[in-house]
Amino acid sequence: MFKFDIIAQSSTNRARAGIIQTAHGKVETPIFMPVGTQATVKSLTPEELLSAGAQIILGNTYHLYLRPGCDVIKQFNGLHTFMNWSGPILTDSGGFQVFSLAKLAKISEEGVTFQSHIDGSRHLLTPEKAVEIQTCLGSDVTMCLDNCIQHPASRAQTRQALEITTRWAERCKTAWQGGSNGNGALFGIVQGGMYKDLREASSKDLVALGFDGFAIGGLSVGEPSETMFEIADFTLPKLPDDKPKYIMGTGTPENLIELVALGADMFDCVLPTRNARNGQVFSRQGTLNICNAKYRNDTNPLEPGCDCYTCRNYSRAYLRHLYMAKELLAYRLNTLHNVYFFLNLMKQVREAIVKDEFEAFRKNFYRNHNN
Amino acid sequence: MFKFDIIAQSSTNRARAGIIQTAHGKVETPIFMPVGTQATVKSLTPEELLSAGAQIILGNTYHLYLRPGCDVIKQFNGLHTFMNWSGPILTDSGGFQVFSLAKLAKISEEGVTFQSHIDGSRHLLTPEKAVEIQTCLGSDVTMCLDNCIQHPASRAQTRQALEITTRWAERCKTAWQGGSNGNGALFGIVQGGMYKDLREASSKDLVALGFDGFAIGGLSVGEPSETMFEIADFTLPKLPDDKPKYIMGTGTPENLIELVALGADMFDCVLPTRNARNGQVFSRQGTLNICNAKYRNDTNPLEPGCDCYTCRNYSRAYLRHLYMAKELLAYRLNTLHNVYFFLNLMKQVREAIVKDEFEAFRKNFYRNHNN
Repeated sequence: MFKFDIIAQSSTNRARAGIIQTAHGKVETPIFMPVGTQATVKSLTPEELLSAGAQIILGNTYHLYLRPGCDVIKQFNGLHTFMNWSGPILTDSGGFQVFSLAKLAKISEEGVTFQSHIDGSRHLLTPEKAVEIQTCLGSDVTMCLDNCIQHPASRAQTRQALEITTRWAERCKTAWQGGSNGNGALFGIVQGGMYKDLREASSKDLVALGFDGFAIGGLSVGEPSETMFEIADFTLPKLPDDKPKYIMGTGTPENLIELVALGADMFDCVLPTRNARNGQVFSRQGTLNICNAKYRNDTNPLEPGCDCYTCRNYSRAYLRHLYMAKELLAYRLNTLHNVYFFLNLMKQVREAIVKDEFEAFRKNFYRNHNN
Repeated sequence: MFKFDIIAQSSTNRARAGIIQTAHGKVETPIFMPVGTQATVKSLTPEELLSAGAQIILGNTYHLYLRPGCDVIKQFNGLHTFMNWSGPILTDSGGFQVFSLAKLAKISEEGVTFQSHIDGSRHLLTPEKAVEIQTCLGSDVTMCLDNCIQHPASRAQTRQALEITTRWAERCKTAWQGGSNGNGALFGIVQGGMYKDLREASSKDLVALGFDGFAIGGLSVGEPSETMFEIADFTLPKLPDDKPKYIMGTGTPENLIELVALGADMFDCVLPTRNARNGQVFSRQGTLNICNAKYRNDTNPLEPGCDCYTCRNYSRAYLRHLYMAKELLAYRLNTLHNVYFFLNLMKQVREAIVKDEFEAFRKNFYRNHNN
């Protein structure tokens, strides 16, 4: 069922537009995937996600495995029915969260033991288990378990982590071939930190194993933007052009545009949703903090000209009031705008690529941007 | 613009069905008014309120006066545009909140001085000011400022409070006639605590002054249900039958049904919205607490057969998961169901009155009810 076709390629850089086919519908790339960590994109319904232009969302294996647990989701034949989202779902492998959220994560060749951040219970996540959980979730795109490391990390640490990542990727593929429903896709994750030769080694290993798509992990982990772009610029061409290329866990609107120019197709980030709940709103002119006193009497929408539900119906003054009063509706309306903003930006980026006007679009984007 | 017509009267008790006309549309009584304290019915959009069957909502003068302030709402020509709700709005006078929420409330003939619960700022709320604020809010139904007292209260305290309430009602009417937009209605509020003779005195005073509708305040303040019903049963017939009769701040589904039988037309209560956020869900069979472990694997909707958005799309297992994970969507989905439940109950009550089958409806309601 999984298929990727490139329909346009920029003549001036590596940006490309494509279509991913999945058992739950198609995804037009480049695409931003809203993050639905705990079987919900925080504060929104599936209908609102669709109205904002969402085509595919991300679910978090680590969170869903711990709560509500696979036995619950299995009763619904997976995450789609459980959360009432009928479009495609990509699930991460849990690797990143085990290393960043769980307590006492301890790695061995077999996998990672960790304690739940919720109740302290002990668990072992192996490559096979990561595939099994994602299969139970009914994921359209399953990610291989990878060994995520802190930044900065030494060359030796980084090499060791990427080598384990490769061996785990191989085990994931074996498990996947033995146990998956056959409808989805399995993506490998390139590691290698900020070392180009290690990124190259990791890419070669994974390409040799063969996957339906390739992700670059371990970016946006605290390194300067220039380093991120340099590593992405170096690594993306090492991955096969006929497969989707996914940069995990990033980023700002500016980052997305630059990474698309370098040849990336897929993105996820908590930025639009998390920042919305902190009162930070994205717009073509830059970000605005809705709690700012200057919006107290402002009858304008968040972003004049924006077609999202929030901007069509509410003023900055109202949204500031809701936010200051800690009203639940504040988080919803800000989130809806931000998610729309990211999805609409990628839609415009894609249209520009299709018309081979991406460079002009990019220049125009920065011209309008104040901060 | 304000008009009230009775279209049906039960042949077995005082229940009646009516239609209130306002400048923002009609309201079919008996009606439950969802509470939109801070210019939002917590967690819901106006479209969701409409989809749940809401016809009129309540706004809180005390809260809106303090935050965002009348100067902000005035820029939108009132609350309707500010919060994007185009249906009728009833605003309370602020009296109840001044006595229950504000600090250091001190009463004099002139009005009540108090300190804001938000920032400690000092304010004076007079009858004239209460009308002025509600006029600025563009309220369809303005409530007179009343003197709310603690329960229990002595006869002397209660008498004093009702006498001030009467004098304030007179001042409210004068201010209203001088300054209102002329489109709305002004309701008087009967006080008198749990003393029937004082309730009678208060009713006579207010009826003599003449209002577009009459509310009974000072019920559901901690007294036993039997006392509440006894006072309502005694007071409601003292109010003119050709005007809407509104019991403020109550109550449970059972209370609403009993009070309708006694002749009440309008209700407001935070119960459906507040309890939803605490995980308590209403159904025809009684209430359920969604955090209960027995719902962990329950694939049923909250209330089988319910037509609300939540029940049409989500399971108890999913709603329990969202609630346990403290996801914002939990509060929305529970609130939407509870608001729908209250509004749908009143719709069914009204249909039963129109068909003169209210007694049968009431018996049937209790037969299905477990708790």
